[in-house]
Amino acid sequence: MQFKEFLSNEELVRIHEASIGILEDVGILVHNEKARKIYAKHGCLVNSESGIVKFTSAVVEKYRKAFIPTFSFKGRDPQFDRTIPGDKPLVVTGSSAPNIIDPKTGKERRAVSGDLANIAFLINELPGFDVFSTATLADDAPHGQFSLSRSYPALKNCLKPVRTNTPSMEDLLQILELGFIMAGSKEAYQERPLITHHCCPVISPLTMDVESTEAIMYLTENGFPAYATIVPSAGSTAPMTMAGTLALGNAEFLAANLLTQMIRPGTPIIYAVLPTVTDMRSGAYVPGGIENGMLIMAFCQMARFYGVPSGGYVGQTNSQVNDSQAGYETGMNTTSALLAGASLFNMGGLLGGLMAFDFAKAVIDNDIALMLKRVEKGLEFSEENMSLDLIKEVGPGGNFLDKKHTRDRMRSTGLMPALASRSMRPTWEDQGALDSNARALKIAENILSKPNPAVLAADIDAKIQARFEGIVAGDAVWNQ
Amino acid sequence: MQFKEFLSNEELVRIHEASIGILEDVGILVHNEKARKIYAKHGCLVNSESGIVKFTSAVVEKYRKAFIPTFSFKGRDPQFDRTIPGDKPLVVTGSSAPNIIDPKTGKERRAVSGDLANIAFLINELPGFDVFSTATLADDAPHGQFSLSRSYPALKNCLKPVRTNTPSMEDLLQILELGFIMAGSKEAYQERPLITHHCCPVISPLTMDVESTEAIMYLTENGFPAYATIVPSAGSTAPMTMAGTLALGNAEFLAANLLTQMIRPGTPIIYAVLPTVTDMRSGAYVPGGIENGMLIMAFCQMARFYGVPSGGYVGQTNSQVNDSQAGYETGMNTTSALLAGASLFNMGGLLGGLMAFDFAKAVIDNDIALMLKRVEKGLEFSEENMSLDLIKEVGPGGNFLDKKHTRDRMRSTGLMPALASRSMRPTWEDQGALDSNARALKIAENILSKPNPAVLAADIDAKIQARFEGIVAGDAVWNQ
Repeated sequence: MQFKEFLSNEELVRIHEASIGILEDVGILVHNEKARKIYAKHGCLVNSESGIVKFTSAVVEKYRKAFIPTFSFKGRDPQFDRTIPGDKPLVVTGSSAPNIIDPKTGKERRAVSGDLANIAFLINELPGFDVFSTATLADDAPHGQFSLSRSYPALKNCLKPVRTNTPSMEDLLQILELGFIMAGSKEAYQERPLITHHCCPVISPLTMDVESTEAIMYLTENGFPAYATIVPSAGSTAPMTMAGTLALGNAEFLAANLLTQMIRPGTPIIYAVLPTVTDMRSGAYVPGGIENGMLIMAFCQMARFYGVPSGGYVGQTNSQVNDSQAGYETGMNTTSALLAGASLFNMGGLLGGLMAFDFAKAVIDNDIALMLKRVEKGLEFSEENMSLDLIKEVGPGGNFLDKKHTRDRMRSTGLMPALASRSMRPTWEDQGALDSNARALKIAENILSKPNPAVLAADIDAKIQARFEGIVAGDAVWNQ
Repeated sequence: MQFKEFLSNEELVRIHEASIGILEDVGILVHNEKARKIYAKHGCLVNSESGIVKFTSAVVEKYRKAFIPTFSFKGRDPQFDRTIPGDKPLVVTGSSAPNIIDPKTGKERRAVSGDLANIAFLINELPGFDVFSTATLADDAPHGQFSLSRSYPALKNCLKPVRTNTPSMEDLLQILELGFIMAGSKEAYQERPLITHHCCPVISPLTMDVESTEAIMYLTENGFPAYATIVPSAGSTAPMTMAGTLALGNAEFLAANLLTQMIRPGTPIIYAVLPTVTDMRSGAYVPGGIENGMLIMAFCQMARFYGVPSGGYVGQTNSQVNDSQAGYETGMNTTSALLAGASLFNMGGLLGGLMAFDFAKAVIDNDIALMLKRVEKGLEFSEENMSLDLIKEVGPGGNFLDKKHTRDRMRSTGLMPALASRSMRPTWEDQGALDSNARALKIAENILSKPNPAVLAADIDAKIQARFEGIVAGDAVWNQ
């Protein structure tokens, strides 16, 4: 089994060297003072006036040795715990869309906390998804509860691992406290941290912010799971070449992730990216472009070079509806990343270039996720599976349809998708001539019109509501 | 640059040996008497009563040495000539759909010769397509002109290579005569054969027919380009395992293609397949399933093992409309095949499991084809493309948008698709809120409402019409 690779080993080494050159020669502008101190303490050259941090090759080489090869996600129910790369492809929803396609009206509107509860319930039920990343914002968040209004509905309605992000330390500490209550205590949570934090400390090109950098340092110090995504966009925040975007993005990956190793060697990380090439005709941001998949493939090779799990935002679409474009953009880029060996797929449920969550899109992406997992399972080559005795028994002109061998394997050899239509046109027309968007919405409705069996225990919930006055209801309610 | 591979070298060798075992032990039922004689003459064991032909390992090894690594397609205009694998991915339309989605009514109906003229014109204009395979049947074919009514409209309206198939020797000879007239003479045609013939001599499991086998023998004897597609379906005509389907399909590939080498060593071939896994819930034929892509990937490895170009029918969809399913089925399987190194992609324009041609689907598949070609071009790694000086010049927190470097590369680094929408929702709504199907149909209409500049010269056309009395008009006419 070998992966599709664009780059030779010599080229990987050259990119690594070029990234070190960028870190040595240009450096990173680090806005967080505490981070600058940590970099300085561990051998970086810090200009306290400009905020520029420069690395030497020796520093990079020393701390990258601390990288470890796995990253784990824990859920409310341990049966949903996942570790990559072993459990790849790890399929995750897209995150933080401001809007949602209202499932009743079909119109786009601001997302609210109740939407997150419904989405969490749906993701919990769809077998293709491994992790629920808080897919939208919550426009109804009470003052001071911006992140709580997202994470609480998510955790309340989903047994799978939840991944979230927070814009400030206040929010981060609130979310951790929510986690402690759910786990029973801080100690119990430390044993089994059921929230994975996502940070974007790097703003391309070559800049690290205050808040997200502060968050990843705090989480690292406390041993709570967190990882960063690097988001270079060729033509605007990176050079208009794939090789340049790779060299720059890799320097940014090193800067952010060496910081975690300086704080706590062996902190689990993911080489996560959301790379794009800007469409210069309009300046459009293009997560749906084929270049997203190509760049993920290349970053994935760099991740193998460093011995860490890889992936990121892949398979997002720029389409506003579940049309053919939405299908091929999600399908082609996720397939590319899979065949290049990526582990993490932040792929599900969003339309319009990360702007809106859509229930039907999540159901469609569940089918795509199951297809990816079928590919990952591989061809299952074995002497027995070659079925040579059966081929002889059936013989020229015979038929395999009525064989026990066929019946025994009919559910494992081929994926049997819930969504895809395989009917001939007359049958399909008799069934209402529904396209995959309409069928997907029906599947979502069918799941969400029932009570959620995964809802959080009432006693724990009472503690949460007592602690956070005015907290949103966080209940999955479909038929109102 | 390495391809995604499921199988190790030892496994490839084992499949090769298993296929020889099938050919030795079970044999092929060959209905064509002339073929049986050729096999017998070249060392096979032929049972003239049963029609079973058995191969020895020595025969297989001797004649597979004659395989050559390239296959060429020639067009009316030599600028469109293509040779695989060098010109991969070679993108071809799907073929022989009985129906068409009428572009005016949106309803499915029988396809006619005039449709083929319009389709040929469209494919000629869409840059993602390399070869036009006669995409539909022609329901208005005059008696005795079944194939002529397909090939003539195709050749009349398209400068790119045309690929077609014929159900009988009578039809084959008629099509060749059409080619001779177009080329000026039989000799000129032999120099530059602008029709590539496609045959399906093998009916899985392990059977060769009369007519298609006769055709491929005739074409091989005369040095005209032809190739065969192997079509095993796991669970009905092959074992319900991928390894068994591979071993069986590979035996069938060898049987059909060794015949051509026995007739004329060094005859160019393609390891072309249309493998599927039957959906046993309904018995549905599933060219859109992910298993089609997986099996193509594996057959592609066998093709490299034999040193011949590979590919086949990949990226077909079972969907009846251009919805998300049609997009991800075409996108995922073609991407899989590409990253496994396939050369030939019979992918474009069909809906409903090969049953109907659709103009919008062809335009959508053109965008997918261009995405595949962008991936094939690769990352373009070079010292210059790493753009290290520019990264230094822009520096932390800077911007690449206004750089000449960016402008110079904006049309080559990222693909700029004609079809995909990258607008934010308000803009997209202002532009009519059209999905990719509606936009694709507009692109097709825009092309087809103009006169076709590629139409065949009147003097040659007059000769064709004089020779074939009652021949269909074969003209592309859009607005009637």
